[in-house]
Amino acid sequence: MNPNQPQAINETRLRVRYAETDQMGVVYHCNHFVWFEVGRVELLRQLGFSYRDMESKDGRFIAVAEAKCRYRAPARYDDEVLVRTQLLNVRDSVVHFGYELRRVEDGTLLAEGETTHIVTDAEMKIAVLPEKYLTVFRAAVGKQNGEPLERTSHQR
Amino acid sequence: MNPNQPQAINETRLRVRYAETDQMGVVYHCNHFVWFEVGRVELLRQLGFSYRDMESKDGRFIAVAEAKCRYRAPARYDDEVLVRTQLLNVRDSVVHFGYELRRVEDGTLLAEGETTHIVTDAEMKIAVLPEKYLTVFRAAVGKQNGEPLERTSHQR
Amino acid sequence: MNPNQPQAINETRLRVRYAETDQMGVVYHCNHFVWFEVGRVELLRQLGFSYRDMESKDGRFIAVAEAKCRYRAPARYDDEVLVRTQLLNVRDSVVHFGYELRRVEDGTLLAEGETTHIVTDAEMKIAVLPEKYLTVFRAAVGKQNGEPLERTSHQR
Amino acid sequence: MNPNQPQAINETRLRVRYAETDQMGVVYHCNHFVWFEVGRVELLRQLGFSYRDMESKDGRFIAVAEAKCRYRAPARYDDEVLVRTQLLNVRDSVVHFGYELRRVEDGTLLAEGETTHIVTDAEMKIAVLPEKYLTVFRAAVGKQNGEPLERTSHQR
Repeated sequence: MNPNQPQAINETRLRVRYAETDQMGVVYHCNHFVWFEVGRVELLRQLGFSYRDMESKDGRFIAVAEAKCRYRAPARYDDEVLVRTQLLNVRDSVVHFGYELRRVEDGTLLAEGETTHIVTDAEMKIAVLPEKYLTVFRAAVGKQNGEPLERTSHQR
Repeated sequence: MNPNQPQAINETRLRVRYAETDQMGVVYHCNHFVWFEVGRVELLRQLGFSYRDMESKDGRFIAVAEAKCRYRAPARYDDEVLVRTQLLNVRDSVVHFGYELRRVEDGTLLAEGETTHIVTDAEMKIAVLPEKYLTVFRAAVGKQNGEPLERTSHQR
Repeated sequence: MNPNQPQAINETRLRVRYAETDQMGVVYHCNHFVWFEVGRVELLRQLGFSYRDMESKDGRFIAVAEAKCRYRAPARYDDEVLVRTQLLNVRDSVVHFGYELRRVEDGTLLAEGETTHIVTDAEMKIAVLPEKYLTVFRAAVGKQNGEPLERTSHQR
Repeated sequence: MNPNQPQAINETRLRVRYAETDQMGVVYHCNHFVWFEVGRVELLRQLGFSYRDMESKDGRFIAVAEAKCRYRAPARYDDEVLVRTQLLNVRDSVVHFGYELRRVEDGTLLAEGETTHIVTDAEMKIAVLPEKYLTVFRAAVGKQNGEPLERTSHQR
């Protein structure tokens, strides 16, 4: 493993808001996807990019094409949650992320998920990710110049 | 009262979603503002306008400048809620709405609120509402050509 | 097909709220799961049950164990959306729903999804669904007394 | 000013989530109330209390009775926002908070607001705040044993 290789996994923490709970006394299940998005943005930042600039300066959007989540244990109000985000795969116009949510206090796995994104322009037409992103993203998933290595050990 | 006068009050119904509850077992208080917005859009529709077109065709936005809500009784999951929306006042670049939320089943007053909006263009600069809206809006608050009549009986 | 058999598919309409859009100008992807929940509750109502009563009177909750959505076309502000919900499968403690979202105006498929639920008691321990629900649910997925018929033509 | 007096103002930072924007390209106005709630919980924590424990151990809830917000400048995606929360007033069964939201980058005032809360028990009946909270809260608003000092300089 090249130590100069971009770090392919981001870890971010957030605290469960009251607004995110429902009357079952746990976090309503759609919020997990919002947290995935928080992790995704922070992973991009860690790789040297701002998703805000990707949109406003490069005119590229990563629209969600597929999203899934498996809920393992309820997240509760005021829990501190660790969002672990990994770049699973990248192609010219497709980006694929994986996520793990854990309760910080005791390490309990709360949920696992994946999202697949299509790169689009501002009119929502499919577009190619600019080379500066592709280069870094490919390195981050363990590929070099489009040459795929073995799939990462990510097992879900 | 002129029978041709636009109806200044809209009544719309919605059903409380599970997502809108919190762990106190009642609707989380920020959702009432979302319901006010539902009522506002339906009042515009009743007056002959589409807020979607106001944005996309006329390039006018009604940004929220102030919002308030007084909570009278908890709204609960699966309640059917009546949103009663009234146009309280309109000036060239300011629109002022009032709202009442009632549980349909027993008429209980759940909340009352008001929002004040500034009319802007797409760059969020203050702009004047096109005359076609102003004419109808003024009539709807009981004014004609800018000449104010007595204030409506709306007391809050 | 027995005409007395409970109708296994529910169709409900809702209108996209401004609050549900994001700065890409389309509906933020987590709201589709909220709409699935709206469809689920209405399917239960069509089958003769109130999810509110299931919780408050029978002490049974259907916690989400897995959720996924494939996004086919962007939903936009003020679109009227048809939520088509189907009971895909039921076992003593597991319920599985499928969904389709279509724009009413032109029939465009917006998204497809599935959710799997674990039946729990108020302490979030796995529990068996009371017989009155099981009987109706099984009939609704084309089973009788636990005897599985051929899988429905639902292909995803 | 007694240096041992509890600090009456809390400052917390959060980053605007994509989910919180709307198609106007700015933060949807109901999210400001969610951020006020984040500030409120952190102010309680700073005063030595956990709102989670207040609910689960002391059986006291602070239901929102009134909420208002004046929007001064649009908050945008990925902005870092400073939430400044102040305890404005406390009586046996009423707590009153004030808020200011500022963009961290340039100090721009984004919004100001206030919320009033009624203390209730788990059945949502009005209840008195336990003495341990009252003592600290009163000190935090510049009162001692219910004896009001001059009002704080908070001007809105």
